[in-house]
Amino acid sequence: MITGKNYIGNQLSSKGTKTYKTFNPELNIENAHVFTEATHEEIEEAVSLASKAFKVYKSISGAEKAAFLNAIADEILALDDTLIQTYCSETGLPEGRAKGERGRTVFQLRSFADLVQEGSWVEASIDTAIPDREPVPKPDLRKMLIPLGPVVVFGASNFPLAYSTAGGDTAAALAAGCPVIVKSHPMHAGTGALVASAIIKAAERTNIPNGVFSNINSSGIEVGAILVKHPKVKAVGFTGSIKGGRALYDMASQREEPIPVFAEMGSINPVVILPEALKKRGATLAKTYAGSITLGTGQFCTNPGLILGIKSASLDAFIEDLSTEIVKMTPSCMLHPNIHGAYNRNKDTAMSQPELQVVADYGSEVKTNYAKQAIVTVKGDTFLNNPKLHQEVFGPFSMVVQCEDETQLEQIIWQLEGQLTGTMISEDNEISNYQNLVSALQNRVGRLIFNGVPTGVEVCPSMVHGGPYPASTDSRFTAVGINAVKRWARPFSYQDWPNSLLPEALKNENPLNISRLVNNVQTKNKI
Amino acid sequence: MITGKNYIGNQLSSKGTKTYKTFNPELNIENAHVFTEATHEEIEEAVSLASKAFKVYKSISGAEKAAFLNAIADEILALDDTLIQTYCSETGLPEGRAKGERGRTVFQLRSFADLVQEGSWVEASIDTAIPDREPVPKPDLRKMLIPLGPVVVFGASNFPLAYSTAGGDTAAALAAGCPVIVKSHPMHAGTGALVASAIIKAAERTNIPNGVFSNINSSGIEVGAILVKHPKVKAVGFTGSIKGGRALYDMASQREEPIPVFAEMGSINPVVILPEALKKRGATLAKTYAGSITLGTGQFCTNPGLILGIKSASLDAFIEDLSTEIVKMTPSCMLHPNIHGAYNRNKDTAMSQPELQVVADYGSEVKTNYAKQAIVTVKGDTFLNNPKLHQEVFGPFSMVVQCEDETQLEQIIWQLEGQLTGTMISEDNEISNYQNLVSALQNRVGRLIFNGVPTGVEVCPSMVHGGPYPASTDSRFTAVGINAVKRWARPFSYQDWPNSLLPEALKNENPLNISRLVNNVQTKNKI
Repeated sequence: MITGKNYIGNQLSSKGTKTYKTFNPELNIENAHVFTEATHEEIEEAVSLASKAFKVYKSISGAEKAAFLNAIADEILALDDTLIQTYCSETGLPEGRAKGERGRTVFQLRSFADLVQEGSWVEASIDTAIPDREPVPKPDLRKMLIPLGPVVVFGASNFPLAYSTAGGDTAAALAAGCPVIVKSHPMHAGTGALVASAIIKAAERTNIPNGVFSNINSSGIEVGAILVKHPKVKAVGFTGSIKGGRALYDMASQREEPIPVFAEMGSINPVVILPEALKKRGATLAKTYAGSITLGTGQFCTNPGLILGIKSASLDAFIEDLSTEIVKMTPSCMLHPNIHGAYNRNKDTAMSQPELQVVADYGSEVKTNYAKQAIVTVKGDTFLNNPKLHQEVFGPFSMVVQCEDETQLEQIIWQLEGQLTGTMISEDNEISNYQNLVSALQNRVGRLIFNGVPTGVEVCPSMVHGGPYPASTDSRFTAVGINAVKRWARPFSYQDWPNSLLPEALKNENPLNISRLVNNVQTKNKI
Repeated sequence: MITGKNYIGNQLSSKGTKTYKTFNPELNIENAHVFTEATHEEIEEAVSLASKAFKVYKSISGAEKAAFLNAIADEILALDDTLIQTYCSETGLPEGRAKGERGRTVFQLRSFADLVQEGSWVEASIDTAIPDREPVPKPDLRKMLIPLGPVVVFGASNFPLAYSTAGGDTAAALAAGCPVIVKSHPMHAGTGALVASAIIKAAERTNIPNGVFSNINSSGIEVGAILVKHPKVKAVGFTGSIKGGRALYDMASQREEPIPVFAEMGSINPVVILPEALKKRGATLAKTYAGSITLGTGQFCTNPGLILGIKSASLDAFIEDLSTEIVKMTPSCMLHPNIHGAYNRNKDTAMSQPELQVVADYGSEVKTNYAKQAIVTVKGDTFLNNPKLHQEVFGPFSMVVQCEDETQLEQIIWQLEGQLTGTMISEDNEISNYQNLVSALQNRVGRLIFNGVPTGVEVCPSMVHGGPYPASTDSRFTAVGINAVKRWARPFSYQDWPNSLLPEALKNENPLNISRLVNNVQTKNKI
C-alpha cells in the first residue's frame, strides 16, 4: 500500500507539511497519491538509525545478508500487479518494460545474495607469520573487505526499479554490509514506496536491524544535500544527469571528511561505422540503429547519440536510410513532462547550431509527452569546433558526424568526454586496419562493443558500466554486475590477531570454505 | 651524478632561473648541489610526453613492464654508496636506515615486477555468449583492468626512497601501465635525482618509451598545483601532511574532469592498553613503547601518538615507567630544520593546552635539529572536549589518555578521526571482554594490531596501509603492498570482440596462462 509517508527505518512517518504527487505522462494527469516530504528531524532520525544499525549489520553473516536480499526479491514479486500498474502510471513506460525491469531487479538482488552467501567476494588474504625472519620477525597479517558505513542512494528516473529503491546501488550496498538511505525519486515516488515497503517487510522477516533501510521522500534538492553532507553518511550512489551527479560529488568532496560518490551520469555513446561496413551493410545498420536510438523513447544512458563515419557515398546513403527508418518508428511516451520538455529544449538547441543539417524530424502530431525522434548531421570540423554538439540530448535523438578522413575521426574520438560505451562497426576483419581508432576509443569509454548496439546492459561479472568522467565520477568501479559491491567496501587488515577472535573469513579453519590468498596462493585450504 | 636538472622524459633540462639546495640537518649546513626549478614550459613538455608515451606504454606486456621495474631496482642498487651518502646527507637519518629503506624500495619494485610478470592482477573475467538465450541473446563479455593514464607522484619527506621517486606509488603506477611524473621532494632532491637517473637508465635499457617517467624539481607549491590541474594528468599519489594532501585533493576534485587522488596523510595511531595487560606487563610495555615512539625520531606515519587506558594505579605506574624509559632514549636528528621547527611548535601547542600534564620532556641539551622526546597525559574528559589534542605531533611525542571507564574509552574511539592503525594490548584472552572497543576501533582504522606496536609496515598482499579520512583520501585502497596497483587502474569490458583482436589476457587460448573468472569459475583453462 502506498501511504505517501517516509520510511524512517521500519516506521512510517510524515511529520512534514510539504507534499507532492507523481504524474502519469501517458494520461497527462497527476496521480492520486500524496507524498509528504521528509523533515530535518526525520532525516536526522534516519541517519542516526542507519549509523546505529551499521554497528550490528556490518558484522552479520553472508548467509543472513543473502536471506535478506532474497526476501527483498520475494517481497517485490509479491507486490505483483500493484507494482506493475504503479510503475506504468508513473513513467509512461509499457507493461512489458515494467515486467522486464522487475525481472532484472530481482535477478540483481539474487545475484548479490549468491555472492555474499558464497563469501569469497571479501578478497580474504592471509600472510602467516615468520617469527624467526631476520632482521625482524614477520607478523601474521590477514586482510578482507569490510563495509564503509551508511550509504545514500539516489535512484534514476529512467530505471524506477533496477536503478532506484532496490536497484543495483541499494542491492550492492546492502550486500557489502552498508545500511542504505534512499532519497526517493519524486517522479516515481509510488513505485519507490511500494518497493520500500517490500524491503521493510523483508528486513522484519529476516531479523535485519531497524535502520538498515530508510526511504526518504523529497521533490527538491535540499533533502539530498542534507543527506550527502551528513557526517554519519559514508558514501553516495547516484544515477542521473551530469549536473545532478556533479553537484553531489562537489558537496561530498567539500565535506570536512570527504566521502566517495559513485555517480553514473550522461553519455552519448559514440558509434564508429567503418567504411567497408557502411558500404556492405549500410541499410541494415540504419534499421538496427533506428531501433536502438528510439528504444525506451531514447531514455537509456547507453543510447547511441553520436555516430561517426568517414564521408563517402555510403555514408550519405546511410544517413538517408537512417532518416527514413527513424521516422517509421512509432513515437512513444517520455517519463515525465519535465523530461519531455528538456528533450525538446535540448533538441532545439542542438538543431539550431550553425552548419548543422536536420535530416529527420518526426513531422506528424504526437500525443502529449510523446517524443518526436530526430537525426542531424554535421561535418567533422563543425563537430570539433562546437562543444555544444558534444552534449547529450536525452531522448530519441542522434547525430551523424561526417569526418574528413581517418585522422579527423581519431582526433574527434580523443577529444570526446568520457563515455559509458563505444561501438565499432566493422565488415569482417576491417577493424584490424583501424587499431589507432580502437586505442583512442578505449581511452574514452568503459565498454567497447563490436558490431552491436550500446543499448542493453548485460548483468554479469564481466560487465563494466562506468567509465572516465563524466560517464562516472570514479572509473575504477562499475555500477552494474556483482563487482559493483566493491564501491561500498574497504580493505582492512588484522595483524597478529588471535584466531578465535578473527572474523570467520580469516580464521585458520576457513569455516566459510571461501577462496583465499594464503601466502600468495589462491586456495580454499585450511591453515 | 646529481646535475640539479629536471628529467623531462629522458632529457636533462634546466630552463628555469629559480634554484634551491637541500640541507644536511646533522651538520646543520646546506648541501652543495644546486637544483633548478622546472618552468611552465618544462612541465608542459613532461605532461605532453607522458600523455604520448601512455598510448604505447598502456599496452606493453607484463614481461616488458617487469623487465623495466627490475632494471630500476638494479640501477638503484648500482648507485651504491653515492645513493646512501646522499640520502644520509639530506635527511639526518643513519646509514642503516638508508640501506634498510633501499632494500624495501628494491623489494617493492621486484614485487610489482613479479605481479605484472605473472599477470593475473588484471582480474580477467569472461562471460561467454549464449546466442539462443530468450528473450534476448547473451553477448560475449570480457573484462580486465587497464591503466588510468599519466600519474603525478608527490614523495614523502620521511621515506626518501621507499615512498618517493621510485617508491610504492611510482612502482605501482608503472606496474599498472601508467606513466609517472614525480614532483621531486625538495628536502631530498639529490636522492631523488639519483633515483630518477636510475629510472631513466632502466627505461632506456629496456626500451620503455620516452616520457613514461619524468622528475620535476620544485621547492614550492605552484609546480605541484600545475601538475594536478593539468587536463592530461589522470591521477595523483601523495604521502605527507593532511594540509598538503587535502590541498591536492581539493584541486583534483574541483577540476572540470575530477581525478582520483590517493593521499596517505596524518595519523596518531591509537593504542588501547587493557587493564589486565597494564597490571601484568606495564613496565615491559613502557619500554617497548618508548622504543616505538622514538623510532626514526618519531617520524613515521604509524608512530603511536595516542595511548588510551582506563584510570588505575597500573595506568599511573605505566605513565611513570614510560616517562622514565623515554628520557633514557638517545635523542636523534630530524629530517630538516623545518620539520624540527614544526615539531617544536606543535609540541609546545599540545603542551600548553589546559588540564594537560607534561610527564616527560627530555631536558638535556641536544644537537641542533635533534628532537627532544616528550610524553603528556590528560583525562578522558579533557581529551574529548579539546580537538586540538587529537592532532598529530609529527615526531617523538605521545599522549596518554586516562579514561574514566570503558564507556568513556569507547566514546573517545568513536570520536577519533580516521587512522592508519589501531592497536589493542591485551593479557591473554582479556580482549574478548572488550569487543565493543574492537568494533569501535575497527571503524576508525585501516589495520588493527594485537599486542604489538604500529611502527613497522610489512610489505605483503595482506597489508592495508590506508584508512578512513584523514588517514587517506580513499579508504578503498592501500598504499602498501601489491594491491596498491589497483589505485591506478580501471575495469574495462569488451563486448563480442573478435578473439584475435582481444588483449592476450582475454583471448580464448589464455596465452598468458593467468587465472581468470570464466563463466563464474576461477580457472587457468582455455575456452
